[in-house]
Amino acid sequence: MQTTSPIETSNISTRDYLTVAEEVAANLAANAIQYDAEAGLPTEEVSMLKESGLLLLPVPREYGGAGASWPQLYRVVQILASGSGSIGQIYANHICLVNAAVALGRPGQAEQSYRITAEQNLLWANALNARDGRLKLEATPYGFIARGVKSFGTGVAVGDINVIGATMDGVDHPMVFTIPGDRQGVNYNHDWHNMGQRRTASGSYSFDNVQVSPEDIVGPPQDMTSAFLTLVFSLSQMSKVFTYLGIADGALNAARDYTLTMSRPWQGSGIEQASQDPYILQKYGELWADLQAAIALADQGARKIQQGWDKGTSLTAEGRGEIAIAVAAAKTVAIKAGLSVTNEIFEVMGARATSSRYGFDRYWRDLRTFSLHDPRAYKHKEIGNWFLNQEYPVPSQYS
Amino acid sequence: MQTTSPIETSNISTRDYLTVAEEVAANLAANAIQYDAEAGLPTEEVSMLKESGLLLLPVPREYGGAGASWPQLYRVVQILASGSGSIGQIYANHICLVNAAVALGRPGQAEQSYRITAEQNLLWANALNARDGRLKLEATPYGFIARGVKSFGTGVAVGDINVIGATMDGVDHPMVFTIPGDRQGVNYNHDWHNMGQRRTASGSYSFDNVQVSPEDIVGPPQDMTSAFLTLVFSLSQMSKVFTYLGIADGALNAARDYTLTMSRPWQGSGIEQASQDPYILQKYGELWADLQAAIALADQGARKIQQGWDKGTSLTAEGRGEIAIAVAAAKTVAIKAGLSVTNEIFEVMGARATSSRYGFDRYWRDLRTFSLHDPRAYKHKEIGNWFLNQEYPVPSQYS
Amino acid sequence: MQTTSPIETSNISTRDYLTVAEEVAANLAANAIQYDAEAGLPTEEVSMLKESGLLLLPVPREYGGAGASWPQLYRVVQILASGSGSIGQIYANHICLVNAAVALGRPGQAEQSYRITAEQNLLWANALNARDGRLKLEATPYGFIARGVKSFGTGVAVGDINVIGATMDGVDHPMVFTIPGDRQGVNYNHDWHNMGQRRTASGSYSFDNVQVSPEDIVGPPQDMTSAFLTLVFSLSQMSKVFTYLGIADGALNAARDYTLTMSRPWQGSGIEQASQDPYILQKYGELWADLQAAIALADQGARKIQQGWDKGTSLTAEGRGEIAIAVAAAKTVAIKAGLSVTNEIFEVMGARATSSRYGFDRYWRDLRTFSLHDPRAYKHKEIGNWFLNQEYPVPSQYS
Amino acid sequence: MQTTSPIETSNISTRDYLTVAEEVAANLAANAIQYDAEAGLPTEEVSMLKESGLLLLPVPREYGGAGASWPQLYRVVQILASGSGSIGQIYANHICLVNAAVALGRPGQAEQSYRITAEQNLLWANALNARDGRLKLEATPYGFIARGVKSFGTGVAVGDINVIGATMDGVDHPMVFTIPGDRQGVNYNHDWHNMGQRRTASGSYSFDNVQVSPEDIVGPPQDMTSAFLTLVFSLSQMSKVFTYLGIADGALNAARDYTLTMSRPWQGSGIEQASQDPYILQKYGELWADLQAAIALADQGARKIQQGWDKGTSLTAEGRGEIAIAVAAAKTVAIKAGLSVTNEIFEVMGARATSSRYGFDRYWRDLRTFSLHDPRAYKHKEIGNWFLNQEYPVPSQYS
Repeated sequence: MQTTSPIETSNISTRDYLTVAEEVAANLAANAIQYDAEAGLPTEEVSMLKESGLLLLPVPREYGGAGASWPQLYRVVQILASGSGSIGQIYANHICLVNAAVALGRPGQAEQSYRITAEQNLLWANALNARDGRLKLEATPYGFIARGVKSFGTGVAVGDINVIGATMDGVDHPMVFTIPGDRQGVNYNHDWHNMGQRRTASGSYSFDNVQVSPEDIVGPPQDMTSAFLTLVFSLSQMSKVFTYLGIADGALNAARDYTLTMSRPWQGSGIEQASQDPYILQKYGELWADLQAAIALADQGARKIQQGWDKGTSLTAEGRGEIAIAVAAAKTVAIKAGLSVTNEIFEVMGARATSSRYGFDRYWRDLRTFSLHDPRAYKHKEIGNWFLNQEYPVPSQYS
Repeated sequence: MQTTSPIETSNISTRDYLTVAEEVAANLAANAIQYDAEAGLPTEEVSMLKESGLLLLPVPREYGGAGASWPQLYRVVQILASGSGSIGQIYANHICLVNAAVALGRPGQAEQSYRITAEQNLLWANALNARDGRLKLEATPYGFIARGVKSFGTGVAVGDINVIGATMDGVDHPMVFTIPGDRQGVNYNHDWHNMGQRRTASGSYSFDNVQVSPEDIVGPPQDMTSAFLTLVFSLSQMSKVFTYLGIADGALNAARDYTLTMSRPWQGSGIEQASQDPYILQKYGELWADLQAAIALADQGARKIQQGWDKGTSLTAEGRGEIAIAVAAAKTVAIKAGLSVTNEIFEVMGARATSSRYGFDRYWRDLRTFSLHDPRAYKHKEIGNWFLNQEYPVPSQYS
Repeated sequence: MQTTSPIETSNISTRDYLTVAEEVAANLAANAIQYDAEAGLPTEEVSMLKESGLLLLPVPREYGGAGASWPQLYRVVQILASGSGSIGQIYANHICLVNAAVALGRPGQAEQSYRITAEQNLLWANALNARDGRLKLEATPYGFIARGVKSFGTGVAVGDINVIGATMDGVDHPMVFTIPGDRQGVNYNHDWHNMGQRRTASGSYSFDNVQVSPEDIVGPPQDMTSAFLTLVFSLSQMSKVFTYLGIADGALNAARDYTLTMSRPWQGSGIEQASQDPYILQKYGELWADLQAAIALADQGARKIQQGWDKGTSLTAEGRGEIAIAVAAAKTVAIKAGLSVTNEIFEVMGARATSSRYGFDRYWRDLRTFSLHDPRAYKHKEIGNWFLNQEYPVPSQYS
Repeated sequence: MQTTSPIETSNISTRDYLTVAEEVAANLAANAIQYDAEAGLPTEEVSMLKESGLLLLPVPREYGGAGASWPQLYRVVQILASGSGSIGQIYANHICLVNAAVALGRPGQAEQSYRITAEQNLLWANALNARDGRLKLEATPYGFIARGVKSFGTGVAVGDINVIGATMDGVDHPMVFTIPGDRQGVNYNHDWHNMGQRRTASGSYSFDNVQVSPEDIVGPPQDMTSAFLTLVFSLSQMSKVFTYLGIADGALNAARDYTLTMSRPWQGSGIEQASQDPYILQKYGELWADLQAAIALADQGARKIQQGWDKGTSLTAEGRGEIAIAVAAAKTVAIKAGLSVTNEIFEVMGARATSSRYGFDRYWRDLRTFSLHDPRAYKHKEIGNWFLNQEYPVPSQYS
């Protein structure tokens, strides 16, 4: 597993975690163009995360973490994503996976997850995608054996603990297990060649007779009927929303710096500096205002998630449904605002900003790539169905 | 002045003011089509406001009011505007005018405003527009005399206390005074013929030798240099934002009721009820989500206004500037979302919804009319100038 | 029938029909606000049409008309609609109805239609809507009797020849017949109370034992299997498109006049005339450019319609399908551009332009009302289905 | 210079030039992902152009070419750009440069350009950008010497004849000269590292004492005052418009192929094929319709250009101004439609379409890069200034 010495949680007080995140984001941004060009494993970035102490933010204080709330955690996602969309995504997964056992684990399992994460400063990653059922789990007298393939195992190659989804003959629900990053038989196929989020190592993984002990299996939870179980999907969806917002934030701020220092006033505009151009000012104002609305809606949704999380297994289906609608709305609005920002910043920077040396296209490529898991049209349909017909979305990985 | 007996503030606890507002809004909506057709004075609606007790919401508890915060007051504006854009606007003015003396009045003046408002259940209205300087104030040995005309005196014909702006020779700033609604010499010209907000009596007023006593003059405030003085413009701007949001809310909900009960499924859609049409569901979802983002941003701005208000004269120019930016952003986003809603609801209702019996066009006419005071392009420019150049808007009636 | 003396076709040469149309449009615009306020029958406007000679434009030269092509006729629709959306619609119907018998009539019927139209300068109107099957035709020994009601009989109260759709027991397709405007038993219910297109008399009509002779029945056509039959729906759909474009044109030009003469420069803009404001110029440029694109696409579609029309019964299903797609595309683009124009002109005129004296809201009300017959979403779906799956729309009143 | 044997113009009849262009586009598309990845010189693509005979399209028949009109030439630009945005741009430049001497050359110079182009099947390229004045022309007893640097010399490294702009002491207008591609002293710096249009070799060129003979100088034209002179800027602007349209076309068609063969239906959609999804169909329909409107407007503009071109030096300033407005409108509409297409195709393809193996992001990168030369806001301003104030744009490289 990882060998860097664990970071004291005292490094991450609730007072300064935003500052720490900002520093990490600045470091990520400093090399973002090179990382994007190289793709490959985000080894350096994960080291930054570990040294920063931010991996311990989601762990409750009693287990040695910083006990950050969901709104706080999501803000850190947003900040990290402003430096690197890929690392925003990896951290977004981490905060959800660390907490998944609270809802999905058997009694005591979440506590154990928290404890080892804090003690050893661990990064969580996953290959859960339920649409890919090619990884099989088989029971043997000596535990389980996993065989097969998972596509889209985001960050598994650099994760200290990986959460894996598999199917098992005779079991009609997905099996989920956690294994350490160095568990034998798991091989990354180095096949993540993509137009965006290039530093997430989101390619496929082969499992060659991987041992999975009964303790590795997640769950079963005490209450199998609670709406709380599927709140983990909402946690995860919302972590994506803040990744989008962070990418857009990063793009808008980078564009501003460019306009202030590099853009030339348009000929015939009668203006001496691009930063005084009426149309450039207007466009920045519009992009900023629309993005703030998206952030405000996401923040409101994050507060609802925290309230639902605090309810635990007493969360009702209606309560879960309200959160799902809030998350769906935040998602569609964030994508719209983010696409406008990453697309239109070029119009306030000018033609020379398309040079590869600035890498400004990576914001659009990252956001465009990461915003396609579930179609916006269907998100809007779900919201409309609730607004018109009072029907909540059927809980699923996406709803 | 008004003769209905004052409402006990106990009628309006912080617990149930939203319910009261919802009831008033439902009553306003019930006659909204007729009111819109007739235009004229909103006498009935003002009676509803008085009977509801909502006029006392903004008055602090120690003076006999309900002591509602700005976020609470703005929510009531939004709710009332969902029933009637005109009454939303009138109430929006009321809550700002009742409080104006806190920032602009001389010591003791605000307390007096609060006291008489609570004791007599008064509605405040105004004719302040600084762009119209035709009303002159003249000093005489027996006090002041006001002569001239004010265009756009919203609700002055039904106001119990009217706040009036005038110019005075030798004085380089606008003079503001308050006079009771029955002060002799003030005549409404019944000339508010407009495509929207038709029930605000926003026409012109003639002042024929109107007596204005020195006590009627607002101010001067103790600290003439404070940024707090111009926070009243932000209060007022934000009250407009929530009026827009309320109009949009009212439109979206009215459309839903129509779609559920009246819309026919499109031929060839293969669907039995319009409320199951995939495109109708999608459109409602999109309109709702975008409107929620606008509301969330406005709510965030309302909280900032409360923080600034609580600072009083210790509010800095920077603090005031941050609020101005928040208000400008909320305004542009609310207008955009509201125009989409009031324009596109027809596409999810169908051609028959254009019958005058439903009056659905009034939402667009109201919003379109009331959203034009200051151009969105310049709002965006101000925001952009702050985002790029760290310059706050120059405080004015609109910024 | 009408009593004004017939206009010589020589009044309307192909050289100057656009000038004539512009003059009529200017006259329509001069009273448009009053017409819109009064609603009621468009008697004055129909007189203008008759005196102009424009009713004879669609009649071939050999029958005494001007023999204008479809692109020419549609341009006249656009021009008339720029002065009055209602009259645009009425004229749009006229040009299609005069020609309907070419495709739908039995041999000789079209020639007869042309001849009497030219001789007597007749206006054609209709109550065809196939979704309303309450008008019944019954065969008797002395011809047919029509009994029942038609909703939405646009202009029938002022039409010289009205084309009526009815159902008949034992006949599985709609029956269509033409009757003179003074045929006994047809009564207008004066119930067109609508937010837009208020001067079209589009209310319901009662048929009390109306005599319909066998000669009044339209058809049957010689070739019942030809795709040419349903081309009449495309003609009609396209005439609506040009009505939209005309309304938008009228709005944009009226706004320009207002901005040039009435709008005030925004305070703090540093500009002396609104017509120099950078944002106002930009917005006009954007609205104009987008509208030109819509017009260019409609013009292209009009040329395709002419080609299809010229093919007559040799038009193939594929040829008809191509036209249907062209019309659907033109329709969606025209509505989008038109809604932008009629909604956003207020932002380049300013708040005072909302006064009822200018009546600028009628453009939006007219367009919004008339653009709802068939949902844009389904138009786009049809286009998409052709683009993806090579399937043409099933011919219908709307496709 | 080039060594492939010249193509007979008989290869390119007006009958089949579109077929030829489609074939070349298909070949370009087949390797587009690799070309985009490698960047570098478009040597292979230029060979395709030469073999196709398309380089001779713009040359009049009397000089051995195909004598295509501007609308025909622009259509070929569009088709080529659908296969490769870079080659669309290179060919767009070619057709304008071949013709430039008609307006700018001294008597006989255009004829000479045509003749050698046809005889030797030559590709024209340029480094003209007037905003970069670092290349100096100096008169010597033995002709001129060019020294300095030009940035953005699109395709000069592969051009057979290059048109170069330079400044000369004592001359207040730019000097333009043409030199063969193998003229000694011109060196490409291989520094075109850009996010889009990566195969245009648009980097900088150094001129080390390059000999320029008096015959190489373009002009002076016979009539120095004609509006015809600056029509070349309109030709060039319009060629860019059709490049945008081609990129969008290519994107939309490539997306269709993907949706039909690769996209999976959304879970819970109840649909078996993505190509039957109602939202996917709708989105394709919308993108296609909007793109057709942009094409129709551009086509209209192209016809106006041809009319202006045919007028020659009798073109008036007003005539030139009308064309400039038409081009500006076409440009803004094409960019808007193109950005929608290249951005939104991902939503109808799905997440897996972001794999680098498909290279779908290149459409957005190419269009975004090539659409930034002159800000859309200023284009709209120019149009608005004409629409409101009847002022034509001041002729310039961009207007």
